Amino acid sequence: MRIAVDAMGGDYAPAVVVEGITAALYDFPEYELTIVGHLGKLAYYLEKYGIEDHPRLKQVHAEQVIEMSDNPTVALRAKKHSSMTECARLLKDGKVDAIVSAGHTGAAVAAMKVIARTLPGVERPAITASMPGLSGRFVLADSGANVDCRPIHLAQFALMGEVYAKYLFGIDKPTIGLLSVGGEEGKGNELTKEVFKILSKLPINFIGNVEGNNVFQNAADVVVSDGFIGNILLKSAEGISKTTMLLMKDLFSKTPARLTGALLSRSAFRELKAFADPDDFGGAPLLGTNGICIIAHGSASARAVRNAVKAAGESIKFGVNDKIVSRIAETKEIIESMGTK
Amino acid sequence: MRIAVDAMGGDYAPAVVVEGITAALYDFPEYELTIVGHLGKLAYYLEKYGIEDHPRLKQVHAEQVIEMSDNPTVALRAKKHSSMTECARLLKDGKVDAIVSAGHTGAAVAAMKVIARTLPGVERPAITASMPGLSGRFVLADSGANVDCRPIHLAQFALMGEVYAKYLFGIDKPTIGLLSVGGEEGKGNELTKEVFKILSKLPINFIGNVEGNNVFQNAADVVVSDGFIGNILLKSAEGISKTTMLLMKDLFSKTPARLTGALLSRSAFRELKAFADPDDFGGAPLLGTNGICIIAHGSASARAVRNAVKAAGESIKFGVNDKIVSRIAETKEIIESMGTK
Repeated sequence: MRIAVDAMGGDYAPAVVVEGITAALYDFPEYELTIVGHLGKLAYYLEKYGIEDHPRLKQVHAEQVIEMSDNPTVALRAKKHSSMTECARLLKDGKVDAIVSAGHTGAAVAAMKVIARTLPGVERPAITASMPGLSGRFVLADSGANVDCRPIHLAQFALMGEVYAKYLFGIDKPTIGLLSVGGEEGKGNELTKEVFKILSKLPINFIGNVEGNNVFQNAADVVVSDGFIGNILLKSAEGISKTTMLLMKDLFSKTPARLTGALLSRSAFRELKAFADPDDFGGAPLLGTNGICIIAHGSASARAVRNAVKAAGESIKFGVNDKIVSRIAETKEIIESMGTK
Repeated sequence: MRIAVDAMGGDYAPAVVVEGITAALYDFPEYELTIVGHLGKLAYYLEKYGIEDHPRLKQVHAEQVIEMSDNPTVALRAKKHSSMTECARLLKDGKVDAIVSAGHTGAAVAAMKVIARTLPGVERPAITASMPGLSGRFVLADSGANVDCRPIHLAQFALMGEVYAKYLFGIDKPTIGLLSVGGEEGKGNELTKEVFKILSKLPINFIGNVEGNNVFQNAADVVVSDGFIGNILLKSAEGISKTTMLLMKDLFSKTPARLTGALLSRSAFRELKAFADPDDFGGAPLLGTNGICIIAHGSASARAVRNAVKAAGESIKFGVNDKIVSRIAETKEIIESMGTK
């Protein structure tokens, strides 16, 4: 498994990325990694972690970095030698099987679309996040790649999310729910009402609309939404978890009895915190493009980078892309027969 | 203050509604209430709570009920004598100043639009929910009245939300944030990018885009979004809070030490639970229509109904509608000059 890692992407790059790569080199002896970034700036960190001459680490120079403030499409043209575009090029040229980046999400999506290209039949790639639910993880597709969508896009997100849940979560017939504002078919906006009709016809385990108040209790294995709403849902979940932890810190330190209580049950607090920890999963795959691209959180820690590399390896192992191509091909006729746009 | 309450709306109607009305009659001696519903079915409850002959309670019969499964527009035509439509008619005829319903939200919005009508200049009414943030409540407009919106609608939601935050929360110059998927101006979907431009020109305290991960830490006093996304955000917040409480119940009962700890700090758990309790606020006003309409949660308890009646009284007291009409008129020229649709 050959995986390239964008060393310059993320809030704490390149330090934590190099640290994460180091951990991955030790933990996954079957992986061959390529670090992509400004080698002059990386030298100090590679030496610090003692991996400058590691036999399973290649180094590829990239002169530029796409910053968080850059416009993705502009940056893609103006910075042809950014760490992100070099990663996408390695993928396109078949030099690696997967890439990992904690950088600008929009730029990663754009680079993958323009350089690596979408899979045959796929209209738009989707970020497929793994979200914490009360009785296990569920899949959210799209969680941020596409802010304006048409019905066919959401139909394909459902199919790609299904493949992901089936092979990476090991769920035989994943339930698919459409994120909306009411349980019944008639509820929703123009887009979701149209998508409801299509999903009802597809050979998937479609269970109808799901809502914000039941998705976190695992109403569906795969939750389908456009990337704008999906991203708001994803970030809200993070925001509420963080707010709750801050509030608890405050509430549990108000009286000596509460403090003692908190101390006695501190392992429960640790588990609670771990429950919603995005670093655990490392990153979300961008599905629907040639090769695997794992998008890690901007604030990814070294552990998150290590786990994102692991997720990249697993996606390669299960041949997720081949499964997506078949599933899209199988359902093409049904979708087209409905006049879906 | 004359307030009508739809006795047939909500999951636990009419029992909890009558109980809530009873509490409101005792707690707010200046309010004159009207209970609207099937009087044959209400008689038992009115007697049970001893308010069948209360001097400040009028009774108005409504033969029909709009069920949760009804299509709002169809129901409005087919059930001309439902408790919800009778409430809206009382408001229109000037017989009450405000109404409260825990029934079908879509039907309440439709009844208000068709019977009570929107305020001069207002294109679409908005449900203005009060949401729990780490350092106090914030306003979410729209939180569910309009699933498909144009830019002018969101611009008006901002203005109505501002009035609400100013007079009901007592914030002098409320900060207004636009719910999107990135902090910078260029981030968002087609709708929010257009709205960003308009809000930048309005004489409001617009602070730019806000995101799911910072709204619950009070990034803005007023969060503006279309009703589809607003409703998903609102319900997600409820869903995550509920999931967290269930998870904690499980985690804190795993070992004897944790159980003892939880017992010592049980008052902190109570405060945590109270933090996100929607019953505390009772309901969210539908702003932008003639007269006040408070929409309570479908699962409203008696306390929620009592608090919704209180919220109705406060909205009347502050003359929220007059302020909205002025604010819409003041900004009309700016919005029109931008060619906003």
